Amino acid sequence: MKIWDKGIAVDKKIEQFTIGRDRELDMYLAQFDVQASRAQANMLAGAGLISAAENQQLQQGLQELAAQLEAGTFTIGEDFEDVHSKIEAYLTEHYGDAGKKIHTARSRNDQVLTAIQLFLKDYTRRAAAKTLELVEVLLQKAETHKTDLMPGYTHFQAAMPSSFGLWFSAYAEHLLLDLALFEAAHTVADQNPLGSGAGFGSSFPIDRLQTTQEMGFNNLAVSSVGAQMLRGKTEKTVAFALAGMAATLAKMSYDLVLYNGQDMAFVELPAAFTTGSSIMPHKKNPDVFELIRARCNALQALPNTLMLATGNLPSGYHRDFQILKEILFEPMTQFLDILDIVLFALPQLRIKPDLLNQPKYDAVFTVENINQLIQTGTPFRTAYKQVGLAVEDGSYVPHKEFQTTHLGSVHNLGLDEIRAKVARFRAGSRLG
Amino acid sequence: MKIWDKGIAVDKKIEQFTIGRDRELDMYLAQFDVQASRAQANMLAGAGLISAAENQQLQQGLQELAAQLEAGTFTIGEDFEDVHSKIEAYLTEHYGDAGKKIHTARSRNDQVLTAIQLFLKDYTRRAAAKTLELVEVLLQKAETHKTDLMPGYTHFQAAMPSSFGLWFSAYAEHLLLDLALFEAAHTVADQNPLGSGAGFGSSFPIDRLQTTQEMGFNNLAVSSVGAQMLRGKTEKTVAFALAGMAATLAKMSYDLVLYNGQDMAFVELPAAFTTGSSIMPHKKNPDVFELIRARCNALQALPNTLMLATGNLPSGYHRDFQILKEILFEPMTQFLDILDIVLFALPQLRIKPDLLNQPKYDAVFTVENINQLIQTGTPFRTAYKQVGLAVEDGSYVPHKEFQTTHLGSVHNLGLDEIRAKVARFRAGSRLG
Amino acid sequence: MKIWDKGIAVDKKIEQFTIGRDRELDMYLAQFDVQASRAQANMLAGAGLISAAENQQLQQGLQELAAQLEAGTFTIGEDFEDVHSKIEAYLTEHYGDAGKKIHTARSRNDQVLTAIQLFLKDYTRRAAAKTLELVEVLLQKAETHKTDLMPGYTHFQAAMPSSFGLWFSAYAEHLLLDLALFEAAHTVADQNPLGSGAGFGSSFPIDRLQTTQEMGFNNLAVSSVGAQMLRGKTEKTVAFALAGMAATLAKMSYDLVLYNGQDMAFVELPAAFTTGSSIMPHKKNPDVFELIRARCNALQALPNTLMLATGNLPSGYHRDFQILKEILFEPMTQFLDILDIVLFALPQLRIKPDLLNQPKYDAVFTVENINQLIQTGTPFRTAYKQVGLAVEDGSYVPHKEFQTTHLGSVHNLGLDEIRAKVARFRAGSRLG
Amino acid sequence: MKIWDKGIAVDKKIEQFTIGRDRELDMYLAQFDVQASRAQANMLAGAGLISAAENQQLQQGLQELAAQLEAGTFTIGEDFEDVHSKIEAYLTEHYGDAGKKIHTARSRNDQVLTAIQLFLKDYTRRAAAKTLELVEVLLQKAETHKTDLMPGYTHFQAAMPSSFGLWFSAYAEHLLLDLALFEAAHTVADQNPLGSGAGFGSSFPIDRLQTTQEMGFNNLAVSSVGAQMLRGKTEKTVAFALAGMAATLAKMSYDLVLYNGQDMAFVELPAAFTTGSSIMPHKKNPDVFELIRARCNALQALPNTLMLATGNLPSGYHRDFQILKEILFEPMTQFLDILDIVLFALPQLRIKPDLLNQPKYDAVFTVENINQLIQTGTPFRTAYKQVGLAVEDGSYVPHKEFQTTHLGSVHNLGLDEIRAKVARFRAGSRLG
Repeated sequence: MKIWDKGIAVDKKIEQFTIGRDRELDMYLAQFDVQASRAQANMLAGAGLISAAENQQLQQGLQELAAQLEAGTFTIGEDFEDVHSKIEAYLTEHYGDAGKKIHTARSRNDQVLTAIQLFLKDYTRRAAAKTLELVEVLLQKAETHKTDLMPGYTHFQAAMPSSFGLWFSAYAEHLLLDLALFEAAHTVADQNPLGSGAGFGSSFPIDRLQTTQEMGFNNLAVSSVGAQMLRGKTEKTVAFALAGMAATLAKMSYDLVLYNGQDMAFVELPAAFTTGSSIMPHKKNPDVFELIRARCNALQALPNTLMLATGNLPSGYHRDFQILKEILFEPMTQFLDILDIVLFALPQLRIKPDLLNQPKYDAVFTVENINQLIQTGTPFRTAYKQVGLAVEDGSYVPHKEFQTTHLGSVHNLGLDEIRAKVARFRAGSRLG
Repeated sequence: MKIWDKGIAVDKKIEQFTIGRDRELDMYLAQFDVQASRAQANMLAGAGLISAAENQQLQQGLQELAAQLEAGTFTIGEDFEDVHSKIEAYLTEHYGDAGKKIHTARSRNDQVLTAIQLFLKDYTRRAAAKTLELVEVLLQKAETHKTDLMPGYTHFQAAMPSSFGLWFSAYAEHLLLDLALFEAAHTVADQNPLGSGAGFGSSFPIDRLQTTQEMGFNNLAVSSVGAQMLRGKTEKTVAFALAGMAATLAKMSYDLVLYNGQDMAFVELPAAFTTGSSIMPHKKNPDVFELIRARCNALQALPNTLMLATGNLPSGYHRDFQILKEILFEPMTQFLDILDIVLFALPQLRIKPDLLNQPKYDAVFTVENINQLIQTGTPFRTAYKQVGLAVEDGSYVPHKEFQTTHLGSVHNLGLDEIRAKVARFRAGSRLG
Repeated sequence: MKIWDKGIAVDKKIEQFTIGRDRELDMYLAQFDVQASRAQANMLAGAGLISAAENQQLQQGLQELAAQLEAGTFTIGEDFEDVHSKIEAYLTEHYGDAGKKIHTARSRNDQVLTAIQLFLKDYTRRAAAKTLELVEVLLQKAETHKTDLMPGYTHFQAAMPSSFGLWFSAYAEHLLLDLALFEAAHTVADQNPLGSGAGFGSSFPIDRLQTTQEMGFNNLAVSSVGAQMLRGKTEKTVAFALAGMAATLAKMSYDLVLYNGQDMAFVELPAAFTTGSSIMPHKKNPDVFELIRARCNALQALPNTLMLATGNLPSGYHRDFQILKEILFEPMTQFLDILDIVLFALPQLRIKPDLLNQPKYDAVFTVENINQLIQTGTPFRTAYKQVGLAVEDGSYVPHKEFQTTHLGSVHNLGLDEIRAKVARFRAGSRLG
Repeated sequence: MKIWDKGIAVDKKIEQFTIGRDRELDMYLAQFDVQASRAQANMLAGAGLISAAENQQLQQGLQELAAQLEAGTFTIGEDFEDVHSKIEAYLTEHYGDAGKKIHTARSRNDQVLTAIQLFLKDYTRRAAAKTLELVEVLLQKAETHKTDLMPGYTHFQAAMPSSFGLWFSAYAEHLLLDLALFEAAHTVADQNPLGSGAGFGSSFPIDRLQTTQEMGFNNLAVSSVGAQMLRGKTEKTVAFALAGMAATLAKMSYDLVLYNGQDMAFVELPAAFTTGSSIMPHKKNPDVFELIRARCNALQALPNTLMLATGNLPSGYHRDFQILKEILFEPMTQFLDILDIVLFALPQLRIKPDLLNQPKYDAVFTVENINQLIQTGTPFRTAYKQVGLAVEDGSYVPHKEFQTTHLGSVHNLGLDEIRAKVARFRAGSRLG
């Protein structure tokens, strides 16, 4: 069943090609289409476009569908090209003419758009909640490992003393910062397009502010042309947010994979979290973090894929937008799975002690040697040369005692300041 | 069953996350893994690493698996993490110790790589065959429509007289040209990595030239380190080829979608090839070409997705490579489906006649007016200004009669020359 | 002069390759490095690491450099590898030991980072101001052209009546919405990394909250490791913002280029804003909008270029980050130039009247015909079929009178509501 | 001077924005435009469109310009918008009417296209020659270091014994393989578009096969519409080739940067090839390889940037194509510089001896222990478990003596076979 049926059969091959995986992907949207349809029916009744009785029937039918969704019994059969046809068919089958009227003053374009906006808006909240959970775990790990020193690297060379406290808290701060892009995505998703029809409005006397309020949108996408142009933009903004945070998780995973090798040997995973080799019995491979890294790197490609799919399309709807669901929806779910697996694996990580006692890391203390000289009055540039020459001629003796005081340094992690940033975010953001 | 089982249970969540969709995606590789295993067993027997009797058992078992694949009864159950475990388990179950020996002098790394190389090499041939079929269809359409004139555009402005003969033959030539990238992909896939083990070879006295020959590879990937580095590179080169040709098909589809609108109205699709609108009963939308365009544009994103997933990984195997199957294999199949749907839809296209009789296209003849003046001795720059001023002041009268003679022009399409290029390709290429 | 000079000459070829275009690109950072150095010196004096007299000398020297920058006389000669060496050299040359001490408790890493954060933060404000100016122009154009009807398109087919009022206001709303990403970029740039040294802090008793406040940052990047990790992230977030808005401008330009052709002929540019053809004297090409489109499309590639350049680098500084300046800084300036040229060209656009009187657009009124039937009690689906059949059999008569009432429709643009959104943004955003 | 001057002044701001950096970038094309103009003039004379005397004048003038280019005295002043205007102006200034006639039967579109095709074709040859030079250096290094063992890694874990012989020869083979994409780019560039005019041919009786032959093209781009469509495609195919090889060089650089750190410490660069830190006097950073890596990673972004700039443009010329020069030409040169710096730095690389004597690498010999057991009759899977348990309980003793025999293994690098592949490439390719 197609809601645009015009009495001419569409060629089967063409139909199959154009419908694609819509039935499957529309399951992500079902609950939001039901939510939007309820708001639409209420508004139509308020505007006198349907009767109160008809509205009651529609609300009843939509509630039944919501219950099916809740119970996991809702399906989109082969008879329907998408979730929207299915819902309308259900209403028409059970409530006759009232069902036929649900599409009054609405086009499939704004209907799909509205469901997508609601879905993406909801998603940004769920992703943010999980992220804040991970931030918390990282801050706890930072606290636990605040005295576990490690070499800090620049140019892949051991450079200065660092610590796992600094390392964990760095990722906590970065994930928090990555929520800025989720906030932007939330803002773009928080625009109500309902009532824009096919992108040019209609002559029905509808009340768009009413549906805006009823669906919990903070903004109306006013211009109908502009409302239609949200298609593709909201998806892309969500993709930017995913890409941003995925980069952080990929970097963290890269660190851990590297730290897990025999050369650095800073961290260890329980055997049950590693996999082996078909020919090398000694291997305990950190596949879980390699795959987090790989999947996160693939997630970073999403904005570009969306750009290529939607680039250079003039304003107005194009069927091209349909494939955005295919590009984005599954990776969105995959991203939540990744956050889950990180939340599961990270607490299992074991940190090796006394890493800086190894002679290969002696040179990381040169800065401390210099600072000692400075404190006795040597200008920085002079001290720098003196220590450099000692390293060069082999006479260098590392000055291993050091004490840092400033915020964000080895001996003053500033975890309270970071927690204060988290609290400010929670207080100030609609995602908090 | 895992071929690297080390007696320690892997955590279930971790296992599920790391296996991902391997079972499903490995179905693409099954026949090629069987093919490579047969060559491997023969070579092991030749090198005296297994007995002739053992080899006979292995060949028998592999032939059974090939028959299952042919019959569509081969499956990879939940007990196995991938196709390679499944095949080895089958051989061990049915042929005991012989089955256990199939993995001698082979690592899962070179085993997977070899199957992928064979698969991608085979794919380039299949894609090329279908492309050459489409080239033929386009040349026939060019012949059919060689007198159907249309305006030629530059800057989205009607510029000069053109024809559907030129238009169709342009795409024929471009698809042929796009095969150059498939040729490159074929060259990269045509390197045998078998015997490189985990990327560093082995101390077994294997004969890599024998397996090269038996599997029909034209080249051995000599250095074992280099053989391993093919992982990701072959996939990316195939993705370049897909992206290149997808751009051509997307452009063709964009043209057709544009030509199908009321403003240009150059072409028409049968109603059964169009879809409608849920609110506008007059719409006959060219969704099929919009979706070809969109899918082809998404295909263009593949090289970049692969680059992001594999970028900045040093030499040696990383588990990250596993997700390349997920990124590439389904789009590869989708691309063949797109070629099929183009082959199906294009012959149905109707071209509207007499397009250049419309006054809005009068100005496309200005070049002819200029040429007429030149033939009477006016220098080009002078004629150009004269005609330009006539257009400006409204006195311009189009010189609609024109006759072109050069190759690749309206009245001399040069289809024989294009066919000669096709023939040269077929004769000179391993994809021909 | 290099601030890391170790007494061994670097090979000339290597030096040239590694310095690249730093001298040129660092001019973008000069004023911000001066600003940060002033805060650093004040803080060092406060912490007792330099004397009050030394600080006075440094403030004096930095003020001289600020004046040079203001006057346009500041340059970075061949003797210096970057702006930071140049500034330190100036201070040392003019103020001796005080100059040498400016680098105390600071590494080139956090120095560069701080200048970049300040530069990018400043940039987001400048870009937002110009954007809000363009939003205003678009709203004025919407007001001016609120009665200029045009066909609205879906699938490149004329679909329903629309107007230039809707079209202009759509882009106004979208540019406003695009500022959400600039806001995110501002948030990421608004983190002070100063004091994080080479990414691991130092044992100097510095006061990072003081420099945070003095430079006007709202946040301290607490963890030194995390502070260092801002490198690349802030740049990428700015690139997301540019890419987002560039997509909007590219779409607007695409529309205008299309509307400027003979087939649609909705808009016209003054001749002085067009270019011609070397062989076709009738051409008035809208190159300016084609180039805005092309440049904006290239800007959309920036996030991906940054991702490829920084992907799979573990935590800690890598020299790779240096090329981000080369990738980003010039396009950032180019983007402001594009906004300027849009602000210059858009007011010149002439809209053609009475577009919907053309018979080719009759069918855009089918929805009105349907609505009329609905208002007389026909259910929507029945009316839809009736009008559809009339179009099919040629009996269709367009119902051209229509009156819309809802917000965001042809006859109720809702410009006040849009202006209210602008006002809310101005009030609530640090970019407003 | 513009060759399309129509007597109406173009607004200065618009002119500046549209010309962009053309004057600068066209210097890459100058010699090829001269070459094509000579072929064009000869052909025009042959076709009787200009007189023999006029052709002689034009050949004379073009030879003068070629000499200026050779001598480095050719410039494109502010009076000209591009190289093509400049050349035509020179001919007209010095040879009057003959100069004016050089543009007969040619449009600026096919003129630019032809110069670009010639330039890119020439470039593929130059890049291939330099690449083959590097392949040779790598093979020599492989020979030199064939007994220098190193650990081979999988999953960033030391896995099996490898050698620098295998490592160097791996990159030699890969660079050779990367030339397959250059071959594809060469094929696409080797199509003559001259005579296609603005993309729709002309009514002049020109001989396109003559110019094809005179310019050394192996193919004519027959359809004029198709010839025009080369714009963007050839650039993109060159970008694919650059991206492919850049990935190889980036990976090699990543390896070297990693191997240069204190943890692996496999290689060393002369001090004069490293840079230092502003605060850590012990640092000798491998910036040169970090920057090769970064630049190569940025080069990998080129195909995508070109795709975004040209995506969803229908057939026919668009001004958007102009910016492709800006995107591609400088990176092309930069890529040659990178090859030069690799050729310069690589021979300086010092390899550390006896790496596998370090206990941390003991486990890389487990596969040898297993193979030993297999040779005494133990089935592979049994031996695998036995050795695995020994590693687990600490009783493992590495079996360090091993001897490999197969092609591409530690003790049989197969350099002759690789050289044979190089020889086959040289013999069979137009790039050889």
